Amino acid sequence: MIKEMFSNKKKETVELGFGAKNYNSSVRFLNKDGSVNIRRNVGGFLDRFDIYHWLISISWSRFFVLVLFSYIVANTLFACIYYTIGSESFGGLSVAGSMDAFLQLFFFSAQTLTTVGYGHIYPATSLTGTVAAMESMLGLLGFAIATGILYGRFSRPVAHIEYSDKAVVAPYRDMTAFMFRIANKTQNELIETECQLVLAINNPETKRRDFNRLNLELPRVNFLPLTWTIVHPIDENSPMYGMTSEDLSNGDAEFIILIKSVNDTYFQTVYSRSSYKFSEVVWDAKFVPIPSKPNRDGSISINVKDIHHYERVETVLSV
Amino acid sequence: MIKEMFSNKKKETVELGFGAKNYNSSVRFLNKDGSVNIRRNVGGFLDRFDIYHWLISISWSRFFVLVLFSYIVANTLFACIYYTIGSESFGGLSVAGSMDAFLQLFFFSAQTLTTVGYGHIYPATSLTGTVAAMESMLGLLGFAIATGILYGRFSRPVAHIEYSDKAVVAPYRDMTAFMFRIANKTQNELIETECQLVLAINNPETKRRDFNRLNLELPRVNFLPLTWTIVHPIDENSPMYGMTSEDLSNGDAEFIILIKSVNDTYFQTVYSRSSYKFSEVVWDAKFVPIPSKPNRDGSISINVKDIHHYERVETVLSV
Amino acid sequence: MIKEMFSNKKKETVELGFGAKNYNSSVRFLNKDGSVNIRRNVGGFLDRFDIYHWLISISWSRFFVLVLFSYIVANTLFACIYYTIGSESFGGLSVAGSMDAFLQLFFFSAQTLTTVGYGHIYPATSLTGTVAAMESMLGLLGFAIATGILYGRFSRPVAHIEYSDKAVVAPYRDMTAFMFRIANKTQNELIETECQLVLAINNPETKRRDFNRLNLELPRVNFLPLTWTIVHPIDENSPMYGMTSEDLSNGDAEFIILIKSVNDTYFQTVYSRSSYKFSEVVWDAKFVPIPSKPNRDGSISINVKDIHHYERVETVLSV
Amino acid sequence: MIKEMFSNKKKETVELGFGAKNYNSSVRFLNKDGSVNIRRNVGGFLDRFDIYHWLISISWSRFFVLVLFSYIVANTLFACIYYTIGSESFGGLSVAGSMDAFLQLFFFSAQTLTTVGYGHIYPATSLTGTVAAMESMLGLLGFAIATGILYGRFSRPVAHIEYSDKAVVAPYRDMTAFMFRIANKTQNELIETECQLVLAINNPETKRRDFNRLNLELPRVNFLPLTWTIVHPIDENSPMYGMTSEDLSNGDAEFIILIKSVNDTYFQTVYSRSSYKFSEVVWDAKFVPIPSKPNRDGSISINVKDIHHYERVETVLSV
Repeated sequence: MIKEMFSNKKKETVELGFGAKNYNSSVRFLNKDGSVNIRRNVGGFLDRFDIYHWLISISWSRFFVLVLFSYIVANTLFACIYYTIGSESFGGLSVAGSMDAFLQLFFFSAQTLTTVGYGHIYPATSLTGTVAAMESMLGLLGFAIATGILYGRFSRPVAHIEYSDKAVVAPYRDMTAFMFRIANKTQNELIETECQLVLAINNPETKRRDFNRLNLELPRVNFLPLTWTIVHPIDENSPMYGMTSEDLSNGDAEFIILIKSVNDTYFQTVYSRSSYKFSEVVWDAKFVPIPSKPNRDGSISINVKDIHHYERVETVLSV
Repeated sequence: MIKEMFSNKKKETVELGFGAKNYNSSVRFLNKDGSVNIRRNVGGFLDRFDIYHWLISISWSRFFVLVLFSYIVANTLFACIYYTIGSESFGGLSVAGSMDAFLQLFFFSAQTLTTVGYGHIYPATSLTGTVAAMESMLGLLGFAIATGILYGRFSRPVAHIEYSDKAVVAPYRDMTAFMFRIANKTQNELIETECQLVLAINNPETKRRDFNRLNLELPRVNFLPLTWTIVHPIDENSPMYGMTSEDLSNGDAEFIILIKSVNDTYFQTVYSRSSYKFSEVVWDAKFVPIPSKPNRDGSISINVKDIHHYERVETVLSV
Repeated sequence: MIKEMFSNKKKETVELGFGAKNYNSSVRFLNKDGSVNIRRNVGGFLDRFDIYHWLISISWSRFFVLVLFSYIVANTLFACIYYTIGSESFGGLSVAGSMDAFLQLFFFSAQTLTTVGYGHIYPATSLTGTVAAMESMLGLLGFAIATGILYGRFSRPVAHIEYSDKAVVAPYRDMTAFMFRIANKTQNELIETECQLVLAINNPETKRRDFNRLNLELPRVNFLPLTWTIVHPIDENSPMYGMTSEDLSNGDAEFIILIKSVNDTYFQTVYSRSSYKFSEVVWDAKFVPIPSKPNRDGSISINVKDIHHYERVETVLSV
Repeated sequence: MIKEMFSNKKKETVELGFGAKNYNSSVRFLNKDGSVNIRRNVGGFLDRFDIYHWLISISWSRFFVLVLFSYIVANTLFACIYYTIGSESFGGLSVAGSMDAFLQLFFFSAQTLTTVGYGHIYPATSLTGTVAAMESMLGLLGFAIATGILYGRFSRPVAHIEYSDKAVVAPYRDMTAFMFRIANKTQNELIETECQLVLAINNPETKRRDFNRLNLELPRVNFLPLTWTIVHPIDENSPMYGMTSEDLSNGDAEFIILIKSVNDTYFQTVYSRSSYKFSEVVWDAKFVPIPSKPNRDGSISINVKDIHHYERVETVLSV
């Protein structure tokens, strides 16, 4: 029956760019968070763009630890230089021992790097003057770079879309449908949201991995203020027509979701991706309608976490 | 007659994303200023993007009060730390009492946070040196963040469109039309402006809320230097054909306006939204033509506020 | 004959958004530099966006004068405050007269605003400490704003397109054509460049201003490395078919040019506009081919200023 | 036979914007790195945009050398001004000779420009106070400009695409095809990638340079996680149908590649270009399949440098 299924000529195959190789082991192309599950080795050190990309992608806690660490390393380095030159080259230094001298030069370095420059310690020779002049310039450049990275982190457009934990296959109107729900997690609006749904499944006949587009009942909405249940009707034109839960499992099926939208704050086009593996598809279940109650002021409230709720249904029409 | 109206097959229904639920109480999906009238509860604390979104969305006065407040709080905090360490750990401090010591340490903190660092007060021990080194770094980071947010506020693209207070239904050429006027409120140009108009109305037959697209005589203009009267002709293809003011009221009608344009300063695509509830539609009225007078230098002047002016007309053709 | 011309049904009228009002005096909608020749009075003071728009639009010399002026005004203001409080509230002040005290406080203000803070003068009371703490914060905020505006000025995408001084009407292949030339003035590339050409002319029949699209032989090029001669063939489908130089003059004709391109540095869509009034159209002239010579290294050099050169031709085919 | 080839009516000629002039010497329109091989002379000094464009385009090492150089020049200049005014106008200066005075004023300048302002040297007269106030303001402006340029360098979107060193002409399925391979060099994803391929070749008949579009088997992929072999099938509709390696050489053929994609970090549209001259096309060769092995964690690894590997094949079907 599977063979018959695959000889169905109505399928629209799409090229996502993952190739058609049929890996022996189970492979997930897209992780749940939408990241692509491929590692590229370029050979040689990473170029600059990667460093910037990394710095704006890491978590805030790691970012601040990194800033603090760089600050301490830079000050230690300059303190070593100043200490090597000698504490007698500085004015205002009240030295009580070599450790104390090093610490005071460390603080002098911090005061120079941040351009605080209290001045109770100051460079008294041409050599220390030159090094301090360099350090204060590097300090300003460093904080200029930090400003750029901070703005890069802030202004990076992200579509914070919550996907329902599970997709369901359930009766829908007078047929069966594959469905999942999404909602906007943030307070800023997403407009002109479009969805594409692709089924990646191993074709036992060709020994290749097929990528079939699944048509959606409604591929585009103008607003996404509430939740959006994305519905693929499993009619005779669907590549899923006649498939069972076992067929998905045998074919190592992965439902790939591509969402394109416009963030209403900066009017930037944003993309979101996710995928459901066959094990994340619940058969004979339907989503619980989301309670949305009108408030006194005429507005409507919903709870985003409600999109995950589904309930078992007894009979699924045999398709 | 309403029933007949709704069985009209020529209507093009659109999916805006507000769902089709027919709320019992009167609901306004879009506020007059274009904001969406839905509250999403995500559960748990807000993520970082929301904070940035909030900081670039609040008014300038609130923003500056917030900056000032943060500055005072940060200095008070560090002054407490310095005071706890003890004023004897500072050089240059002329203490005349504990309150005076705290105040002087508060000013020392401000001089450190802003990196002014006069130096008449300075950290004299390793402990105060360390805290001051941290504070000056945090100060620079804080002002780096402020720089990013300030630029985010400045560069955020906005379509400052003035909508006429009322929409009118009036004779237009040889028929009747639904009309409203818009104008650009700012001196920078909007180009390639497009408009979509959707009528949200309760369908008494299906007990659902219908969203019908209203065709426009002219959906797109290259420039918006003067004003633009957006015209929906109420011909036999219009979902409004045969409707009366009472029908709109009974159906809790809302006219939803979606405008897309390009801001000529940054060439960014911007969006503007607004809506007219049935109570903001004036029947048997037409807009007063806007006086535009050529200036001596060959340019033309208009007054944007003139777009709100309308006048009663005696007869509306029965449609 | 003009009347006949206008009853030609093949014209495609376009709506640019300038309205169809036929002004008595001669009006130019677009200035030569592409700015729109309309003044909008909004009533009330300008909102913030306009100020930012103005600050990133003014010339660099005006911008720097403004920064300098603001700096002097701010320092004078704070010097006045400090002077009012009294020079005895400052440490390190060697006063030799009231003018000298004011000057020293002015310099102290500058040292505080820029956070240099030498410290030979310092605030010695709580009142001066508070004012100085405010000033240094305002200084940092002010330079944060300046950073944002400077980046806004830098990163503002502009299509630096040079338009030929004159458009020409000349024989072209086996017919007559309206032609003008453009070139990229800068070293960064423009890609995917598109052009629209619209003729605005008074219609003596309807007493309104018509906007007719003029079809182009080639409306789009992938690159703009050399020059681009934009050609509107005056064939029987052209609204210019049968027009003479006098017809353009009588109709107060304006050729409006809209160019859309992608700046290759930031991959941003940029727009450029210009217009030719009838007096800037030369009949019986053709453009001199631009000498482009291959360099030794295989590259090709051109001189952008050559696009303005045209030469008289003897016969124009009567159209 | 070439003549016949060119009278083939099925070719779709495209206008890239390079003109149709047939240069005598061998010309390469696009360099291997995608830069356009044309020099535009504008006459007069470069305008500001070019300076910004240059500053964000130069290498990081040149950029930092430039910043350091500017810093030294500015300090030397202000040191000269201060020296001309006289070292007696400064407080805290311990002069041991004119060279020493100059050096100390140089360091004072650096402390003022970076706003460190230790204060052991300070301006003691109105004249030096004024110059120092100007210098600290210029310092802040200078570092504001540096911040903007640094952010401009960071945030500039680039499509880091690796092109295979050679293109090949090889049997492909049941015909012959022109092929090359690309891969994403960085860790951030490219999505919605599109490719256009154009053959620039001298037409011996018209003595002009023809630009013919070459149809691709697959012009668009959603993802580019692995490598993408771009295939132009040389069927009877292809302008390359019947051409030999010698025809390409005689026609000074250049294969121009235009790639458009979306960078997944900032969701910005990015462009990449490259070209293959006839000498970079290998006939009777095919690409070695890229080894992609699934990792233990379910992800897949590839080595980007593998895209350059090709191997000879024995027979190419005569086309």
